[in-house]
Amino acid sequence: MTLQKTAVLGAGSWGTVLASVLAENGHDVMLWARREDAAVEINLHRTNSKYLPGAKLPSALCATHSLVEAVTGREFILMVVPSQSVREVAREVAPHLSSEALVTHAAKGFELSSLKRITEVLQEELPSGVANRVAVLSGPSHAEEVICHSPTTVVVASENSEAAERTQALLNNSTLRVYTHPDVIGVEIGGSLKNIIALGAGLSDGLGFGDNAKAALITRGLAEMARLGMAMDAKPITFAGLSGVGDLVATCTSKHSRNWRAGNLLSQGYSLDEMLQQMGMVVEGVKTTQAAYRLAQKHGVEMPITEELSKVLFEGKDPRRAVEDLMARDMTDEMEEMIKLSY
Amino acid sequence: MTLQKTAVLGAGSWGTVLASVLAENGHDVMLWARREDAAVEINLHRTNSKYLPGAKLPSALCATHSLVEAVTGREFILMVVPSQSVREVAREVAPHLSSEALVTHAAKGFELSSLKRITEVLQEELPSGVANRVAVLSGPSHAEEVICHSPTTVVVASENSEAAERTQALLNNSTLRVYTHPDVIGVEIGGSLKNIIALGAGLSDGLGFGDNAKAALITRGLAEMARLGMAMDAKPITFAGLSGVGDLVATCTSKHSRNWRAGNLLSQGYSLDEMLQQMGMVVEGVKTTQAAYRLAQKHGVEMPITEELSKVLFEGKDPRRAVEDLMARDMTDEMEEMIKLSY
Repeated sequence: MTLQKTAVLGAGSWGTVLASVLAENGHDVMLWARREDAAVEINLHRTNSKYLPGAKLPSALCATHSLVEAVTGREFILMVVPSQSVREVAREVAPHLSSEALVTHAAKGFELSSLKRITEVLQEELPSGVANRVAVLSGPSHAEEVICHSPTTVVVASENSEAAERTQALLNNSTLRVYTHPDVIGVEIGGSLKNIIALGAGLSDGLGFGDNAKAALITRGLAEMARLGMAMDAKPITFAGLSGVGDLVATCTSKHSRNWRAGNLLSQGYSLDEMLQQMGMVVEGVKTTQAAYRLAQKHGVEMPITEELSKVLFEGKDPRRAVEDLMARDMTDEMEEMIKLSY
Repeated sequence: MTLQKTAVLGAGSWGTVLASVLAENGHDVMLWARREDAAVEINLHRTNSKYLPGAKLPSALCATHSLVEAVTGREFILMVVPSQSVREVAREVAPHLSSEALVTHAAKGFELSSLKRITEVLQEELPSGVANRVAVLSGPSHAEEVICHSPTTVVVASENSEAAERTQALLNNSTLRVYTHPDVIGVEIGGSLKNIIALGAGLSDGLGFGDNAKAALITRGLAEMARLGMAMDAKPITFAGLSGVGDLVATCTSKHSRNWRAGNLLSQGYSLDEMLQQMGMVVEGVKTTQAAYRLAQKHGVEMPITEELSKVLFEGKDPRRAVEDLMARDMTDEMEEMIKLSY
């Protein structure tokens, strides 16, 4: 394939690793870092010690603190900023984008103020030609493993199949397998909601509830994700795929999972603020819990895990009591509950 | 509820724990152990040191080495013997069963010689009145956690809903939540096939492939399970529930999983025979791989994970090569692959 001029916006762990993948695939990459010292560190030492301690980044990777510098003249822009920053960043770069630019995002959440999905936010903020072909990248992909070339599978979804295929061609290599997917809504919702279940899994593990309880939580979580997804016009089958059950399992069962760790801290008695301070990085699951709770009400969907998590995070409910209440929920016939999904 | 005279056949870890649950729920329980010394140990010391080291069993639990003694006059019989022993045990107890007896099994596999499901085997061997109401118990339930009263959810499925409800009432308590389920075929197939994927997960982890790769394997495994299930008249929705994705996740990600450990040993270069000797207990996934491979051919279903595992187990294929071949499988659009499921 032709080598392209690309930019990655956001130098957190996943953004830095995706920029490294593009560089390793031979593309010209400019990585935008919000913190100036992070850009300097990457350019000087090829490291990102806050987010990827110990990892050596490709020598071809360049970083900048200037958004305009990052996107000007770039054919492919990969946005990997926190969900609540997407609109602001999109608005700032919009006037500087080439009309041919392809924009893909890898944010996992909803915009809390509007309850919109991230591609919806991008479509509102980007020039119409660019907006028509936005894509989303998602799937089970701990950055710490991708940087070590552990085999990883992800999906890229767009309403514009050519945009999905172009993103696939840019990122795909022998250890990062990128599959195209037509269901933008399902891919975005799965990638967002799984962080709520991962907070719950971290709570459950931290309280010593065991692997049986966690498997039940993941199963119920998947059903809850699919229920809201269907109400929002996602395809139910998407939740059975890499961006649904795959990402859910990776996030709920891995030591690399940020949201799992956040839930684990909550189980130890940390308050929400203390936990966030201790984490020192964005924990998407927190705002996603708020957004999903409102979306569930808006669409009239039952989301018991989201509801309990919301009580733990924002109403000070005792985590043990929340997990116990979830486990005690009466479900005489599992099928009746699942059938609501009408997969 | 009325306390009942019950028997559990099979004193492995799961049989012993289910007998303990029945005893704790107040029922009269007789546990049949194939090994006479195991029965003696349980009666004398209330321990089962081979399968549940360190666990103290309820004082009301009695064991016997005699199958006839175990089942005579019992209203509820729970069979927890290896899949390949079910027919022989059923045949031996059949003449001694009360015509009112309820028989539920918790075996996870197929009869290899006939490729039949376990309820099919039971229906062939038990008196017709008893055969009409056989049930299956399955779900994410590591015995080591149930004995410690960690919250656990399971399903019981029967074509006879009253039989499912009776089994539910006998076993259900505040930490073991039992849900009824109408899809016997789906529950049996999910519980069996997940052991193949767990062998694969043990291999993958043992070879250092990481959590991203394991999440992909679990996702593909679920699709493969559902594909064969649908060809065998299971309901696809069942694979999204506790006996499908729930049990799959519990078996692929827990240190308690016997089949995961077996796969892990294979990754270290043990041959099949050496692995089985090292394990010292039945690893259902091995014969299930053989059975599923034949079932896939019979029903014309693609099962790439089962196929690779079969090559590793029975044709000496290098495990690393098998996992790499699986990861390298070309799937340009994930949706196309998943759509075959037509959930």
